[in-house]
Amino acid sequence: MTNSSQPITISQIRGASQQSREDRLAIEEPLEIRLGYEVRDTRVETSISITMRTPGNDAELATGFLFTEAIIHNLADVAFVKPCGAPAPDSGNTNVIRVELESGVQVDLERLQRHFYTTSSCGVCGKASLDALRVAGASPRPFDNTCFSRQMLAELPDKLRAAQKVFAETGGLHAAAAFTAAGDIVVLHEDVGRHNAVDKVVGSLLSQGRLPARDLGLLVSGRASFELMQKAVMAGIPLLAAVSAPSSLAVDLAREFNVTLVGFLRGDTFNIYAAEERIT
Amino acid sequence: MTNSSQPITISQIRGASQQSREDRLAIEEPLEIRLGYEVRDTRVETSISITMRTPGNDAELATGFLFTEAIIHNLADVAFVKPCGAPAPDSGNTNVIRVELESGVQVDLERLQRHFYTTSSCGVCGKASLDALRVAGASPRPFDNTCFSRQMLAELPDKLRAAQKVFAETGGLHAAAAFTAAGDIVVLHEDVGRHNAVDKVVGSLLSQGRLPARDLGLLVSGRASFELMQKAVMAGIPLLAAVSAPSSLAVDLAREFNVTLVGFLRGDTFNIYAAEERIT
Repeated sequence: MTNSSQPITISQIRGASQQSREDRLAIEEPLEIRLGYEVRDTRVETSISITMRTPGNDAELATGFLFTEAIIHNLADVAFVKPCGAPAPDSGNTNVIRVELESGVQVDLERLQRHFYTTSSCGVCGKASLDALRVAGASPRPFDNTCFSRQMLAELPDKLRAAQKVFAETGGLHAAAAFTAAGDIVVLHEDVGRHNAVDKVVGSLLSQGRLPARDLGLLVSGRASFELMQKAVMAGIPLLAAVSAPSSLAVDLAREFNVTLVGFLRGDTFNIYAAEERIT
Repeated sequence: MTNSSQPITISQIRGASQQSREDRLAIEEPLEIRLGYEVRDTRVETSISITMRTPGNDAELATGFLFTEAIIHNLADVAFVKPCGAPAPDSGNTNVIRVELESGVQVDLERLQRHFYTTSSCGVCGKASLDALRVAGASPRPFDNTCFSRQMLAELPDKLRAAQKVFAETGGLHAAAAFTAAGDIVVLHEDVGRHNAVDKVVGSLLSQGRLPARDLGLLVSGRASFELMQKAVMAGIPLLAAVSAPSSLAVDLAREFNVTLVGFLRGDTFNIYAAEERIT
């Protein structure tokens, strides 16, 4: 059993009063993702990422990360995923996971060095970041049949909050959820890192054979950054809705790749930043 | 002049009404940090980090990052810092910054590979992360004379919000501020990334000759993660206060290094997770 929260004794201050009480904390621990693959008929294994995450659904986190970074392209690329190493002495969680790829899967680790933002020795700009996605195989989409109604969107934040089990305990977690046009949440994951919560959702959709997810929207509990929009683009998701503000580059990316972007979603008031044609 | 926000036309939904209106977005753009240093009498330059940040105070961001990663230890290690490359075509901001170190400064880039979380080929745990900080030269502190009053803390969030210029425009930025025991904010920076906002604060304190900042507290607008607590420890700051929840590893780190940790700071109600002796 994986632990996502843990008990703690704290001092609670309420005006002039101070009392000791029991509370719960969201667990944050490093996860090392190791990738096994074949180079010229020889198996190699390399550490490709260490991320601070909330334990739970580590396999989905690892495969979702690999998918959104364009290292894997479908479930058939993956031979197996397994935790390795001894449980951490402090929490009992296993904090290393190994993803073994099938023979013949070509791996381009250069991408993971984050060099893909860089166009030349001395030139980095938002435009280059957008271009890099196109290189990764993502392309702007024509409008499809999937539309999302205002009323359905207005009800989403309450549904998300109701489903956030660890947040309810700790008040300290981000959440990401994939939902249908009818407003049903099909996958929800929580994590101390927003990008991890989204990777877990993408990994779950991958394992269910639902990628690219052209019929689903993605809801995130916080802000919409470039990184989250990038993951939505890679997963083929046509709508990203955020409870808080988007960044400039998230909007650029949404407009370039024709993804509907909703921000400040708080009940029936919200803003649409891109591709509003999908909102009915 | 650096741009931290930009105008945008959006669709605003308020119940059944929909109208087009002008709004502003927090700018998010990549910053590449390049490090120049000497290896056996030869000058080399290498790209050490690309972070998605809000333009502004890039020099402080770069030096703060280098300081909290233990690459530099004081201002005398730095020969100069300067933006390089052409302005990005889309925003006009310069998105590459070069930090040139003085001759004789030893650089251990291994640390930046994030290998420092890893203890062995297959073992990652929170304990190892804590140990890594000790290796970086940080040590638990005895209690000092700096205390922070409840009443001063209670007034901080309003002061922070009032000083957040870009947040007021966009609703989309994290903030970090260093404050005195009397409650005066001495440095405040905003960024789309929480860790960047803290790096900018640390870099500013470094340039003012105020590190280690044993007489200051650090306030952050969001949650307190391991990464932010790590930066506080490296900067010698004895108190970290967060408007939202801390993570388990942030609490472990605070208790290990004897840093006072306040969470859910909302007016005169808050929680104390570590080293409560400094709160009077």
